[in-house]
Amino acid sequence: MSKYWSSLVSELQPYVPGEQPKMANLIKLNTNENPFGPSPKVISAIKSELNDNLRLYPDPEGHALKEAIASYYIDFGIEENQVFVGNGSDEVLAHIFQGLLKQDKPILFPDITYSFYPVYCGLYKVESNIIPLTESFEINPDDYKRDNGGVIFPNPNAPTGRYMGLQHVQAIVEANLDSVVVVDEAYIDFGGETAIRLVNQYPNLVVCQTLSKARSLAGLRVGFAVANAELIEGLNRVKDSFNSYPLDRLALAGAVAAFEDRQWFEDSCNGVIREREKVTKGLEKLGFEVLPSKANFVFARHPEHKGADVAAELREQGIIVRHFNKPRISEFLRITIGTSDQNNALIKALDFL
Amino acid sequence: MSKYWSSLVSELQPYVPGEQPKMANLIKLNTNENPFGPSPKVISAIKSELNDNLRLYPDPEGHALKEAIASYYIDFGIEENQVFVGNGSDEVLAHIFQGLLKQDKPILFPDITYSFYPVYCGLYKVESNIIPLTESFEINPDDYKRDNGGVIFPNPNAPTGRYMGLQHVQAIVEANLDSVVVVDEAYIDFGGETAIRLVNQYPNLVVCQTLSKARSLAGLRVGFAVANAELIEGLNRVKDSFNSYPLDRLALAGAVAAFEDRQWFEDSCNGVIREREKVTKGLEKLGFEVLPSKANFVFARHPEHKGADVAAELREQGIIVRHFNKPRISEFLRITIGTSDQNNALIKALDFL
Repeated sequence: MSKYWSSLVSELQPYVPGEQPKMANLIKLNTNENPFGPSPKVISAIKSELNDNLRLYPDPEGHALKEAIASYYIDFGIEENQVFVGNGSDEVLAHIFQGLLKQDKPILFPDITYSFYPVYCGLYKVESNIIPLTESFEINPDDYKRDNGGVIFPNPNAPTGRYMGLQHVQAIVEANLDSVVVVDEAYIDFGGETAIRLVNQYPNLVVCQTLSKARSLAGLRVGFAVANAELIEGLNRVKDSFNSYPLDRLALAGAVAAFEDRQWFEDSCNGVIREREKVTKGLEKLGFEVLPSKANFVFARHPEHKGADVAAELREQGIIVRHFNKPRISEFLRITIGTSDQNNALIKALDFL
Repeated sequence: MSKYWSSLVSELQPYVPGEQPKMANLIKLNTNENPFGPSPKVISAIKSELNDNLRLYPDPEGHALKEAIASYYIDFGIEENQVFVGNGSDEVLAHIFQGLLKQDKPILFPDITYSFYPVYCGLYKVESNIIPLTESFEINPDDYKRDNGGVIFPNPNAPTGRYMGLQHVQAIVEANLDSVVVVDEAYIDFGGETAIRLVNQYPNLVVCQTLSKARSLAGLRVGFAVANAELIEGLNRVKDSFNSYPLDRLALAGAVAAFEDRQWFEDSCNGVIREREKVTKGLEKLGFEVLPSKANFVFARHPEHKGADVAAELREQGIIVRHFNKPRISEFLRITIGTSDQNNALIKALDFL
């Protein structure tokens, strides 16, 4: 607390990201990073940009990347002016909250969801109505058919991993044609179907994605949104009033290459999906209830052991998973899918149960 | 304009960055980039980080970089918790406007200054009182001794290049102990003396810098602020409510190396200073009035030729400089100091005058 702070600052409840421990040899299954590295083509694309040109500003518009993304989604008729890029999907979401979701009426999002949403609401003074997930931790589309200033939810949801079929997403978008519906698809590529397919049908739909998960580039900070050109123009106006160049030359080059190497991306997603099925079975065998997941993590609880205790015991054994001390989910652990060896080590470490 | 935009969005007047032309062989003296490349140690530090670890999130706190900056300014007693880092000084300034300068009273800044300040005011609804520079385009410290919610100015000022001695900066800071005074030192290393030296004397002083100019890393997007720990904590609260990881792994590594290679940095600054003196003399010989500059650019007008006309003629000849179509300075050109060859080409191109 300081007399020099804006009144806003003392009210903020900042987001707390998953721990990034400095210790070596830890098995890090707590921040949903991809166990497989990025495409070698990403590394070489960055290497080609690694020269004296770093003295020059990057392209403030990120044209090459927008073009690569539009061309990746060409089957859905996406054009460059329908793509917005930013420093990770967190920055993209922040601009979405300020530029599209800050309205006179409260926005809607689930009670159990990405915990950055309420933080953005605090930062931009956006009112919200929190909608409880069903008993089985699902989003019920009917709950989003009420007056609102906007709607946002992840699909698959975080930290539950539960996926909602595209027809249900569409039902929510269609029921809210007067407000913006944001589908936050950080984890969509691990078995879900993207709502980008619907963008040209609905003027109120924004689909947000990241390169941190399926494209293994958490360390490079690139996220994007796809929507109709008018919504994207609104986001550009906010971005150009905040920071002209959020993506550096290396991040732009690497991100373009990541979209170009489709094969690497698909192999990597399939690898995670295979391992997810293995981990799910292993956990179930140990007595865990595992929510059906289409993400690169599973959300699981044991009927006889407290989530916090299991997390602590795993940590003793050098494995970090994420535990949220929050109503309804305090018995759950969110476990990132690791490499085959890491997943085997996890199951073995849970022997004590 | 869209019915889906927040009311804020239509009111915004976004910042327009200098042109980044795609044409090759242009002499680009319009965005104050450094004519010399970054230290080779920066390139190799980034290369070492260019591997599978890009799948992992960067350190959200950027500890290594804060440490490198604190250690660079160790003579002024700066510690790590007095350093804030962000995606270019534009992002750092944005957080400063939202977290420190948004107060009940209007803030003060010069009429001729960095044109992003009024844009931030629009984004965060910060009221301002604009203080005219003197006839000779200087900041008069006495003009900043009036009731305010904060003060911000660049030193050297942009786009004039005029520098104010540290005793005058100190006078402004001391006259405003109840509000935050931000000294934006993007160009300080080309001959000025940093106010970081004063940070431990004044709880209300924030000094903001960038690695885009003197450290030749415009393409990497790194900026920082130094202030007392309480102000930095305020900025961290805003940042952690916006985007946990604004600096990617490569930018962090490169920035640390840039602070470690002191020799390269000093040689580069001295090179720019030498060329600046040469360009100044050349322009004066052609009849230009050149404002005294401590930046990596000069601000100059010709008594007999319109600024816009000279800029257009230079462009015909493949040289881009920046012209601002604004009251009081529309006859001026802002010319970035280039390499020796580029500067010679500039003077030669102005032969037509």
